[in-house]
Amino acid sequence: MDERLERLGEREVIRRLTALPGGEAGGMRTGPGDDCAVVESPGRAEDWLLTSDPVIEGVHFLPGTEAERIGHKLVGRLFSDIAAMGGEPLWVLIDVAAPGETQFGVLEGIYRAAGDLAEKYGAGIVGGDTSAGERLALHGFAVGRVPAGTALTRAGARAGDRIYVTGELGGSLQSGRHLDFEPRIAEGIWLRSEGWASSAIDISDGLAGDLAHILESSGVGAVLDAAAVPVSAVVSEGRGNLERCADGLLPLEHALFDGEDFELLFTVHPERERFFISAWQNVFDLRCTCIGYLTKKARVIEYVDEVGRALNIRGESHEHFRKGRARTG
Amino acid sequence: MDERLERLGEREVIRRLTALPGGEAGGMRTGPGDDCAVVESPGRAEDWLLTSDPVIEGVHFLPGTEAERIGHKLVGRLFSDIAAMGGEPLWVLIDVAAPGETQFGVLEGIYRAAGDLAEKYGAGIVGGDTSAGERLALHGFAVGRVPAGTALTRAGARAGDRIYVTGELGGSLQSGRHLDFEPRIAEGIWLRSEGWASSAIDISDGLAGDLAHILESSGVGAVLDAAAVPVSAVVSEGRGNLERCADGLLPLEHALFDGEDFELLFTVHPERERFFISAWQNVFDLRCTCIGYLTKKARVIEYVDEVGRALNIRGESHEHFRKGRARTG
Repeated sequence: MDERLERLGEREVIRRLTALPGGEAGGMRTGPGDDCAVVESPGRAEDWLLTSDPVIEGVHFLPGTEAERIGHKLVGRLFSDIAAMGGEPLWVLIDVAAPGETQFGVLEGIYRAAGDLAEKYGAGIVGGDTSAGERLALHGFAVGRVPAGTALTRAGARAGDRIYVTGELGGSLQSGRHLDFEPRIAEGIWLRSEGWASSAIDISDGLAGDLAHILESSGVGAVLDAAAVPVSAVVSEGRGNLERCADGLLPLEHALFDGEDFELLFTVHPERERFFISAWQNVFDLRCTCIGYLTKKARVIEYVDEVGRALNIRGESHEHFRKGRARTG
Repeated sequence: MDERLERLGEREVIRRLTALPGGEAGGMRTGPGDDCAVVESPGRAEDWLLTSDPVIEGVHFLPGTEAERIGHKLVGRLFSDIAAMGGEPLWVLIDVAAPGETQFGVLEGIYRAAGDLAEKYGAGIVGGDTSAGERLALHGFAVGRVPAGTALTRAGARAGDRIYVTGELGGSLQSGRHLDFEPRIAEGIWLRSEGWASSAIDISDGLAGDLAHILESSGVGAVLDAAAVPVSAVVSEGRGNLERCADGLLPLEHALFDGEDFELLFTVHPERERFFISAWQNVFDLRCTCIGYLTKKARVIEYVDEVGRALNIRGESHEHFRKGRARTG
């Protein structure tokens, strides 16, 4: 039976791997499949968040990218996962594989930038491993924490909840934002500790793909207001979301499918929704936009225009292993 | 300035990286440079052990190696690090990068074997990440625990302590043991909880290299009894430790420099030493051998024969990045 990964696609591969028995994991609240694994310790007031991410030359950055931006992206990806659970980052390990001809200054730049971003959020690089490899490949692991039982997951959303997104989406590769983004740690902690969010995820695959993860985990559907989706100026260039760009795509499609935005996508209960935006604006300058609401049509995303007419939007989020749509390299 | 990694060598690269500021890491007891990072939580009765290890095709296993042995090695390496600190493993994350043409059955075999070994020690695979890559590369991350303040480190050894090693050393690549070894979790927990060991490390670089880590961290030297070092039959073939093998090396040199044995190397205070071996043998069938003692000559390893005559042994442990001595691939 031909079951090459490139035929199955990343999502099917992950679905199958997470269905395997993984050993008895005492105290696991949320296992593989959310942004972080959530594990509890008996009698403790806190749960632990565990997450890992790769940053690989030719996949997550192009050869020649400045070392500091590579290190920033590595810790940024980890912290974005922790932010999506409403967590506080604590410790980071970095494994690096590099060709022998790499200059030490490259590793130094990566580690310095990684350490700077960790420090900004009160965390630290506490270990790791080095080995030889054909190209520069980094793997980061991070531990974070939340008060016991309070981690934001993908599974808490209900029909009727409003859908929000931070910042602006699309064009992250063109603009270089996929290397320089700020993980939304403060925002995630606030959404969790003030009880605003019923579910949350960070946008790595693209708005459509990551919203689909919430819909699947929560057993709901979504109506997205196409005109409301905040598209970054680098792709919209002032166009409306449904006016075609020079590359033939709609600005909306860039926001839905480009990926690597590392913004937060989250849902808010309708009873709390009327107070939400003013509360947000009291605390954060960062843009935060309501882009739709959840329905009972499990796993279905419906797109509507300003006057509620259905739109036919198709597209595919990035999936590792599949041939075709390239990401960075 | 030419500072290619292959000129500096792995040990110098690690020395420099661990000297960089890594961000404020609250509660760090032991940072980069030991087998695990040890982190504490205020008010908690336990410290956490964090460790990461890569297992990469062509570096840590040859192309065509059975998937189950790759998965076993990945978790085995992580647990061997935890064993060296006297810890109990809890949770594992696995990042996998693989070419698109990889059959899913390969990943499945890796994850099943990883889960089996985790389960054997009461731990679980709780998450990870998948991405495309040119060759199969796994990065594992594990969390373990010890009672607060009790982790075995490389730094607790004193002049006069006796040096012990578990099992037999050398020829791990030839025999395939580097893929199938058993992490010494039970032994590590016993050495820590019964207060036997003053320092410990697992043997990954080779006895000489890993003993050097203890000597450096503890500020001591060592006298090694060349005849006492337990050499695996696959290299000694019945020869004495100082009788040359067909490959021109001494069995002793294989034990000192081959590496990837994943046995425990530890030290015992001389006052406890007379009770140690009988206590060990009451609990474990595994061979455990006294191979020498520690001196005040910081960082110096002296080799002696059966009658105490000095031997001239030179050799080099494996170092990533350096050209020359190949390991697996």
